[in-house]
Amino acid sequence: MRNFVFHNPVKLVFGKGTIAQLPGLLPAGGRIMMTWGGGSIKANGVYDQVRAALQGRDIVEFPGIEPNPRYATLMKAVAVARAEKPAFLLSVGGGSVLDGTKFIAAALMFAGPDPWDILEKGTAVTTAVPLGCVLTLPATGSEMNGNAVISRAETRQKLGFSSEAVMPRFSILDPETTYTLRPRQTANGIVDTMAHVFEQYLTRDMHNPLNEGIAEAVLRVTIENGRSVLARPRDYEVRANLMWSATLALNGLIGVNASHDWASHNIGHELTAFHGLDHGQSLAVVFPNVLRFKRDAKRTMLARYARRVWGVTDPDDGDAGLAGVDRTVEFWRSLGVKTRLSEYGAGDEHFAEIADRLGGGDRRQGENGDLGFAEIQEILRMSR
Amino acid sequence: MRNFVFHNPVKLVFGKGTIAQLPGLLPAGGRIMMTWGGGSIKANGVYDQVRAALQGRDIVEFPGIEPNPRYATLMKAVAVARAEKPAFLLSVGGGSVLDGTKFIAAALMFAGPDPWDILEKGTAVTTAVPLGCVLTLPATGSEMNGNAVISRAETRQKLGFSSEAVMPRFSILDPETTYTLRPRQTANGIVDTMAHVFEQYLTRDMHNPLNEGIAEAVLRVTIENGRSVLARPRDYEVRANLMWSATLALNGLIGVNASHDWASHNIGHELTAFHGLDHGQSLAVVFPNVLRFKRDAKRTMLARYARRVWGVTDPDDGDAGLAGVDRTVEFWRSLGVKTRLSEYGAGDEHFAEIADRLGGGDRRQGENGDLGFAEIQEILRMSR
Repeated sequence: MRNFVFHNPVKLVFGKGTIAQLPGLLPAGGRIMMTWGGGSIKANGVYDQVRAALQGRDIVEFPGIEPNPRYATLMKAVAVARAEKPAFLLSVGGGSVLDGTKFIAAALMFAGPDPWDILEKGTAVTTAVPLGCVLTLPATGSEMNGNAVISRAETRQKLGFSSEAVMPRFSILDPETTYTLRPRQTANGIVDTMAHVFEQYLTRDMHNPLNEGIAEAVLRVTIENGRSVLARPRDYEVRANLMWSATLALNGLIGVNASHDWASHNIGHELTAFHGLDHGQSLAVVFPNVLRFKRDAKRTMLARYARRVWGVTDPDDGDAGLAGVDRTVEFWRSLGVKTRLSEYGAGDEHFAEIADRLGGGDRRQGENGDLGFAEIQEILRMSR
Repeated sequence: MRNFVFHNPVKLVFGKGTIAQLPGLLPAGGRIMMTWGGGSIKANGVYDQVRAALQGRDIVEFPGIEPNPRYATLMKAVAVARAEKPAFLLSVGGGSVLDGTKFIAAALMFAGPDPWDILEKGTAVTTAVPLGCVLTLPATGSEMNGNAVISRAETRQKLGFSSEAVMPRFSILDPETTYTLRPRQTANGIVDTMAHVFEQYLTRDMHNPLNEGIAEAVLRVTIENGRSVLARPRDYEVRANLMWSATLALNGLIGVNASHDWASHNIGHELTAFHGLDHGQSLAVVFPNVLRFKRDAKRTMLARYARRVWGVTDPDDGDAGLAGVDRTVEFWRSLGVKTRLSEYGAGDEHFAEIADRLGGGDRRQGENGDLGFAEIQEILRMSR
């Protein structure tokens, strides 16, 4: 077992009607900037619940943070916040709103000349305006970590940063707020949750049987509840299980001493940038083929995954592992998520450019730096 | 799934050589009171490692905190601390030293006339001197929670309290510090870890399949590594797995929305007070019989435990569950832990008194308040 530090001070408030607990979670005084996205929180009543809980507080709103939140939008929010001087940021929505809010929080306190450096140069974020969240879409795990991914449309860049300073002070998770998610959002969230576990559980042997067990439990619960959620979107237990699993998939616990590999996420980000795939869709296309491409290096791990999560009984490790990948793809397809690029109308016109951006020159992907230009092109071809 | 709040800000620093990280974890200035127990940390080199890491700091020591830490001892520490005015308490040792240190931290800031009220009257602890720990014995889970159990010899009382204010700011867990534990300490720690899971996992149906999965993973890893640790006391992976499992058994995660029942612990505390059994020994005697006594109410949960943790295949839930309890007892006995009161030289001379203290009059134990005087006596008889 490799050495590790685990420190996750996020206060998670989970359950029915918990938005009403907002007043006790927020700092006692000061202006609150409420950030949100499109209009779904108005349609499903979450906006009204939050405003009711905030009655009497000094609020400024910044709506319009889009999926794959854009740098340009967020810099507008930064300008608003510089004028309005909120003491606290409250994200109300899914992982995109929250990721965007984390960036706003960091950019407001950023000492350098250009907050874009946080993303492109990886300049460390050591301080941020405090923030909290009301989560309405289980998927990203952002509610209990310090990660955020931000997009820049004009350069087709999708870049992340991570800092303890932007961990939410609290996250409110009411599964009832997810009843009205569209099937596509629900399905994408399930793919994303599983991909987060894969990135940790299937990278290198964790040498940590307890964390393997937790990872497998997250996967099994996600699959089991994913099987029924589209038919029973208002089943509280199903929604609650999916929401709790999505949080534990990426709150740092499974990955305490795991090697993380975000190659599939990175390739997926490019598919989002070039072809407009949803984040979950891009993972459903790429991830199975990254695993198949690396089937020899990941032989033992894939076999373990297949047997413990899917109950595959094939005695050959190689065959069992590939069967596990096939079962994964079948499951995602059963949720209505297409798993081939061609099904999204995307051809091979950007393969070379994507492969160059991620694996050209000295650039490499993968836990061993073994995915270069040729390998990424091959994975993209496998994904057609 | 019931509503819950999960908030665990303890910074866990896990792995080889991590005691050297102490300077970066402690507050920058102020006196540090180092609390410790008997002499094992001197014998195994932990004392020297800690003192080396603390070089240049203003230290006052308070040694002599015994297993089942005593109120009288701790109040002496409080008197020392009142004179020496430490800014931070550093517990170096096992769960008893840490529990005692938590009580010292709370008593120092206690506003009432008598800190004993924290234990006997359950007066809330809202503030405490900050503390951290170097853990040398995996068992209690105290390193990542706000719980402490304190004994008062003259009244044979063993009482607990719980407060976020006494959660360690950090806990250093170096599995190498556990290489020199006596087999009895190691075995007791394994029993204690499993009992902590049972108190949450086998109380009422958690309606939380993910947490069930985590609980089962903790149990499986504890059993698997428990099987080899006595033969290979210096196997790092085995020691690390046991240490990490013991922490997760009682850091609040498994129990987020579980009913907790500490009846076995409470009866066990009495056996410690009256007959001098180690805490782990007392649980090994009592817990199987509490489960057997409640076999009908716990039928489904016991069967699940037996099948998922022990691989019991009996198709009848009742038989399977009892087989799981038997396997548990066999496992503990294989570690050298005796599981019958008579094996510790204890007869039935205190049964009535113990049953009265816990279940006499209006007093009740158990998640449904269903263990009164007669039931506790019966469980004690089953444990002879």
